[in-house]
Formats: sequence, structure tokens, C-alpha cells
Amino acid sequence: MKIIAADEFIEKSKPSYSQNLDIDQTVLSIINNVQQNGDEALYSYTKKYDLVQLDNFLVSEKEIDEANDSVDKDFTLALKQAKDNIISYHSNQRETSWFTESTNGTLLGQKITPLDRVGIYVPGGKAAYPSTVLMNGIPALIAGVNEISITTPVNRAGKVNPYVLAAASLLGIKRIYKLGGAQAIAALAYGTETVNKVDKIVGPGNSYVARAKKWVFGDVAIDMIAGPSEICILADEDANPTYIAADLLSQAEHDEEARAICITTSSCLAEKVRNEVYQQLDKLERKEIASSSIENYGRIVLADSLENAFQIINELAPEHLELMIENPTEKLPYIKHAGAIFLGSYSPEPLGDYFAGPNHTLPTSGTAKFSSPLGVYDFVKKSSIIHYSKEALLQASDQIVKLASTEGLTAHANSILVRKEDEDA
Amino acid sequence: MKIIAADEFIEKSKPSYSQNLDIDQTVLSIINNVQQNGDEALYSYTKKYDLVQLDNFLVSEKEIDEANDSVDKDFTLALKQAKDNIISYHSNQRETSWFTESTNGTLLGQKITPLDRVGIYVPGGKAAYPSTVLMNGIPALIAGVNEISITTPVNRAGKVNPYVLAAASLLGIKRIYKLGGAQAIAALAYGTETVNKVDKIVGPGNSYVARAKKWVFGDVAIDMIAGPSEICILADEDANPTYIAADLLSQAEHDEEARAICITTSSCLAEKVRNEVYQQLDKLERKEIASSSIENYGRIVLADSLENAFQIINELAPEHLELMIENPTEKLPYIKHAGAIFLGSYSPEPLGDYFAGPNHTLPTSGTAKFSSPLGVYDFVKKSSIIHYSKEALLQASDQIVKLASTEGLTAHANSILVRKEDEDA
Repeated sequence: MKIIAADEFIEKSKPSYSQNLDIDQTVLSIINNVQQNGDEALYSYTKKYDLVQLDNFLVSEKEIDEANDSVDKDFTLALKQAKDNIISYHSNQRETSWFTESTNGTLLGQKITPLDRVGIYVPGGKAAYPSTVLMNGIPALIAGVNEISITTPVNRAGKVNPYVLAAASLLGIKRIYKLGGAQAIAALAYGTETVNKVDKIVGPGNSYVARAKKWVFGDVAIDMIAGPSEICILADEDANPTYIAADLLSQAEHDEEARAICITTSSCLAEKVRNEVYQQLDKLERKEIASSSIENYGRIVLADSLENAFQIINELAPEHLELMIENPTEKLPYIKHAGAIFLGSYSPEPLGDYFAGPNHTLPTSGTAKFSSPLGVYDFVKKSSIIHYSKEALLQASDQIVKLASTEGLTAHANSILVRKEDEDA
Repeated sequence: MKIIAADEFIEKSKPSYSQNLDIDQTVLSIINNVQQNGDEALYSYTKKYDLVQLDNFLVSEKEIDEANDSVDKDFTLALKQAKDNIISYHSNQRETSWFTESTNGTLLGQKITPLDRVGIYVPGGKAAYPSTVLMNGIPALIAGVNEISITTPVNRAGKVNPYVLAAASLLGIKRIYKLGGAQAIAALAYGTETVNKVDKIVGPGNSYVARAKKWVFGDVAIDMIAGPSEICILADEDANPTYIAADLLSQAEHDEEARAICITTSSCLAEKVRNEVYQQLDKLERKEIASSSIENYGRIVLADSLENAFQIINELAPEHLELMIENPTEKLPYIKHAGAIFLGSYSPEPLGDYFAGPNHTLPTSGTAKFSSPLGVYDFVKKSSIIHYSKEALLQASDQIVKLASTEGLTAHANSILVRKEDEDA
């Protein structure tokens, strides 16, 4: 893990337009095939990529019951507490319709309506991601989405991970497709005989899933195109190097491209953190992945001052930011860009991943400069409401006509004029 | 203009992934060239496409002063009133940061931060779109965006439309680039010597601009990919056919692909509307465009009942919806999907385009099912805040460890365990 000076630390991610041109060919042919051949294409891709021949890709009630029976009680209790916390936090994000009026009879407003149908992609196969189900499903439920479906790849026995099913069951989500990859995204975006077309697709996935989401974007809404996961820890000389190292590694174990960065004003702490990282690394189950991530992308950056550190952070716009400094809450005004901000020594990133309540779907790769965590706001949309009285329209008519005419849109002007002429007549 | 029964009315737009594959080659080569060669590429595209050799593509203060002197007083007054109305409406969209606390020391919250830099694309050349400047600029200003720039193509004399400059000047926007097309989008997305990279690109444009926005999406935020403009008017037998026809035509004059649809329960009204459309069409300046739109896409749909009409509307999810029916406000609960809803006979769509206050940038082509009008919320983003006390973390530690271990992410579990062990020791 390299220790570097602040001015050596410049990271540029490749522009998205040029990425993955190889993947695109595959992804586009999958999307096209699913659109043309529906379920048939889905069965054949599942056979090809998941190596299993399904005769029905809808999870049955029996399978859900079996999953609920098979998961252990401690897991269920922990999941329920996480669910309660996530509901509690996200309930604060509810928006309400509003109206304003004027005495001349104008009424203007904004109406909030939930999306009709949402599809959640849950990665799977070997691994289990019940937390993905909660973090994507709960904001959709709070928003009032009518139909929530889940799609997730199966293992070679044709089964969905029981923890994922238990989490879906806990939220009352019953429409679960045994589908993974770009074909699942295509099916949700355009519909097939079995899969209902949705209005928005959310959830993480591999590079084929991500690229398929980019292609169907516009025909259907998507949450975001997630890049590798990142953590940035700002630490002063009094911070605990053991905690910092553990938190850096919790990010590094995600995948080889994950980025774990520590920024500190103390070169003494920098050394301690590096030593701790290597000590802890040795004991990790996912040592190989974490090690590769730490060597290639892990950095300890020496900042000249806290101000300098804030500058670097705002340029980086990290997905996860931990502030292990004195009085971290008072420093919030200096943080402009980060997906989630963890304050103090007892707010490690995994607390947010699973439990505290805020969403773990966060903007990556610097997109926190312009994107938000997934939230209830992602599952509703707004409509503007405009009502003018006759009096109010006639009063405004000359000005509207003037603006429309300036833009050369005379039929626009005419729509006002036919009403005015009626009055004048 | 065809009069058809409700069950004949099925519209499907082409999926986006297969569209514009020809345009893509051009657009990608432009993006690539701008990234490689910066300003030099911009000058050469401006010469090639706008047929003018510029020696500086920043609009000067002198040019802004000249524009302000050249526009007429009535226009300025109308623009100022529109500005006031737009500010008044959008001020209701301001969001505030919030926090919640628990007695065990947890503090959770959501922090709202404006975007740093936003670029507005304003179409130009022959036409003038000062309303685009107001509708995109004002929500960004209210959000607190630090740097707002405008890019707009020039005419053959190398000049920007004076009305556009006057509108920019009214909002205090001074950074204006004489750039149009995909090259302008590329410059805003990646930056050049002269053009500052932005975090979000908003504003309408031709198909090259739209496609360029789709490609840079992810590296930079975009507002939406706009399709052809649409109006849907729901009218009962008492509605005024002259008003309806005028409003349909105000949409049809936009471009040949614009969709003007009237849904009515009265076949008598349907006939009257059709006659009025043809009568008014003859007198329009933009008759050819409007006529083509009306013939190809204009429809009068006979619904069996209001319920049936609401069903069609929610399926269509029109950009603009006018309700020319009895007690329109009481019918709002039945409208799920529409960009903007205009209530009653004196709320024609052009009122919303220019003047009333709500935004005129609206979701098109059925995307109102999942997208919102442009608003202040498009120019801010959220960060989650998580603070746990030592007590609170220790209390939750077993459950977090359980969830992380179930997902096989043992370094995540370890980040909790190192803190717990410290306590136990």
C-alpha cells in the first residue's frame, strides 16, 4: 500500500463512452434476442450462462417457504432489525404534493405519484445478497410502488439463494424471476410472456448488467451505473490505525478494482495504518482479492492540512467517506461531495452497508458530485399542475403572446389569442 | 387528422438501444476528437457545421451589452414577469438537510448540496429560445449551483441570438460558449482549454445533441433524453373546439414528429375539433410542419367513458395533458402519468411553456411514467450522514456481524469485530 503526497494523488477514470465496446456487442445481441423471442431467449441464455435448464423461471411459493424454513433464526432477527432501521430512515424521505394559489384564481402545484412497476436486480449465483433486497425494496415500498419484482441468477441446481428469498419474503415481494445477466435487464425493460415490463430497474450487477442498463436507459429508468466500490477515510493523528485498516480492508475485499484510500495529516499515522493493513490482510478469508485491491488502488495520502484534505475529498467525491477526526460533525460543512459520510470512530462503513438505515446503494467513481444515494425519491415522480382562471389568463395574454412570437412559435401565440378574441368579441 | 376508436389507439415508440446507429458513429468520433484535441477540435467543427471560423468562442461582455440594447422593451418586461413566476414556483422545490437522533447517541441524516457546475444547451442558429435559458437556469440558480454556463450554436455571422443573450444576462449568467451540436456536449462533459468540465448537462437539442448526451451519461449527469413533443387534450362535449384545435396546433408546429392527441367521449365534439384544426391550420405561419405532424401523428380518439379516457392517458403518459372537462381539478386523482397537467379552458399549454412558472422541460415519449419535470431537485444531490456512538455500535455489533458473514464478507464483519474486541479486552 503506497504512501504518497497529496499532489501525487490524481485519479482519472476512463470515460464511459469508450468503455466496454466488446461487451456491447454481446449485450446488444442479448437485448435484441430477448425483445424478439421473449421467454424462449431467456431459457436459452439461462442454459448457456447459468448452466441450468429451467422449465419455469418464476420462483414458486413452495420455494419461498422452503427458504424461510432453512435460514437461521439469528439471521432473521438481524434482518428484521435492519429492515426496521431502513424503514425508519427512509420514511423521512417521503414527499408530498403541494399547491399554491393566488387571489386572481391561479392554482399551481406539484403532484407526487409512485412508479407503477419496479424491477430489482439482485446479484447471485454463489453469493447471497439479502441486504440488496432490503436496500432496494424498502424505498420502493415506502414510495408506494404497486408492483415490485426481483430478478436474480440461479445456482447450477436451478435454485435462488435462500437468504435472498427470505429477505424478499420479509418485504412481501413475491414476483421473483430466476434470471441473471443482460437478459434479465432486457426482460425487465421490454417485457416477455412471463416477465412484466417495468418502469425502472435498480440494483447492482456485473459489467454485462451495468452495460445493459446503460443501453436500455431512456426506454426505462435506471438507478445508476455503478463502478467499483470506494472508501475514503480522513484520519488525524489521534485516529485508531486498527479501525482504519479494518475499514479500508472491508472495502478492498469487495473486488480487485475496489479503491481504499486513507487521507491523513500525520505521517506517523500513515505508517501505522500501512502496517496494520498488512497484518490484518493476512488473516482475511478474501485475502487475494483484498490484497490485489490494496496494491493496485489502495493509497495513503499525506495531506498538508485538513483544508487540503477536504479539497482532495471534494475532488474525489468518494462513495463512502469516514471522518476519523476530532469533532467530525462540525466538519460537515466542508464536505461537498460524498455518497455517505460516516462520523467518528464508531461509525464504520459496514454499519451503513447493513444496518444503520441509510441506503447502501451509493454513487461511485466520483459521481457523488452529481448523484444521490438511492432513496424514496427514486421511486416517485412529479407532475406539474397549472390552473389559470379566465381573468388571470387574459391579464397575462399579451406577455405570453410576446414571448411566443419572439421565438417564432406563432401557433403558440394563437392558442392564447383565440381565447383573448373570444373575450374581446 | 384521423378520428379513431380507443382500441385502435396503440402507440409504440422504437426502443432506444437500436435507434440512431448511424448517428452514433459521427457522435462518437466527435466526442473522441474533442477529448483528444480540445479547443482545436471545437473550432474545426464550428467551421464545418456552423460554417463560421471563430477566433474565440466565448461570448464577450460587449456582445451581451449589444444584445441587451437591441431587444425591445415589451420583450424584456414579459421576460422579467416570466422570470418572477418561474422563481416563485420553483422556490417551493427547495429541499433542506435533515437529521434524526436517538437517545443512544445515533445521529442519522441527509445533507443537501448543490452541484458545482452545470452547462445548459440552448438550441439556436436561426431560432431564438430565451425561454430555454429561464427554464433551465432558474432552478439551477435556486439550487445554489456555483457556476452555470450556456452553450449555443451561432449564426453564420458568428453571433448568438440576442434574445438568448438577454435572457442569460437577466439571470446573471455570463459564461456563454458559441458552440452547438455533439461537440458542445463533449466539451461540457470532458472539458477543454476554454470550456470548463461540468457535472450536469441540461437543455434540449437535435438528435446529435440527444445522442451525445446518452453517450456521456454516467461520466456526467444529464437531464433527460427528450423525444418529440406531445400534447394530449381530454375534452368532454362542452369543451370549446376552437381552443382545443389551437392548443393541438401549438404542439404540432414544433416539429413534424410532434404528437397532438385529443381524447373525447363526444363524437360530435370530435368532428368539430377536426374541422377547426383544418381551418386554423390554413392560417399558420408554420403550416407545413404542423400539417405534417397532424396528418402523421395527430389523432382524435373516441373514448367510451371518462374512465376509459383516464386509462388511455395513463398508458400514454403524455408530456402535456390538458383537461377540458367539467371540474378538472377533482379528476386529478385519476391521472397517474403526465409531465404537466393543465386544468380547464383557460390553461392552455403555451401558458406553461412561457409564463405560469412550472418548468417547460418535461418528460416525453411516455417517460412521464418514471420521470419528472426539470426542477431544483435536478441541481442538488444528497449525502447520507451516519453517526453511531460507541454504545450504539456495540449494541448492534452482533447483528451486523451476522449479516456480513451471511453475505460472505468477513472483512466487513471484522471492521465491527475489531471495535468490539477493543471493548471486551
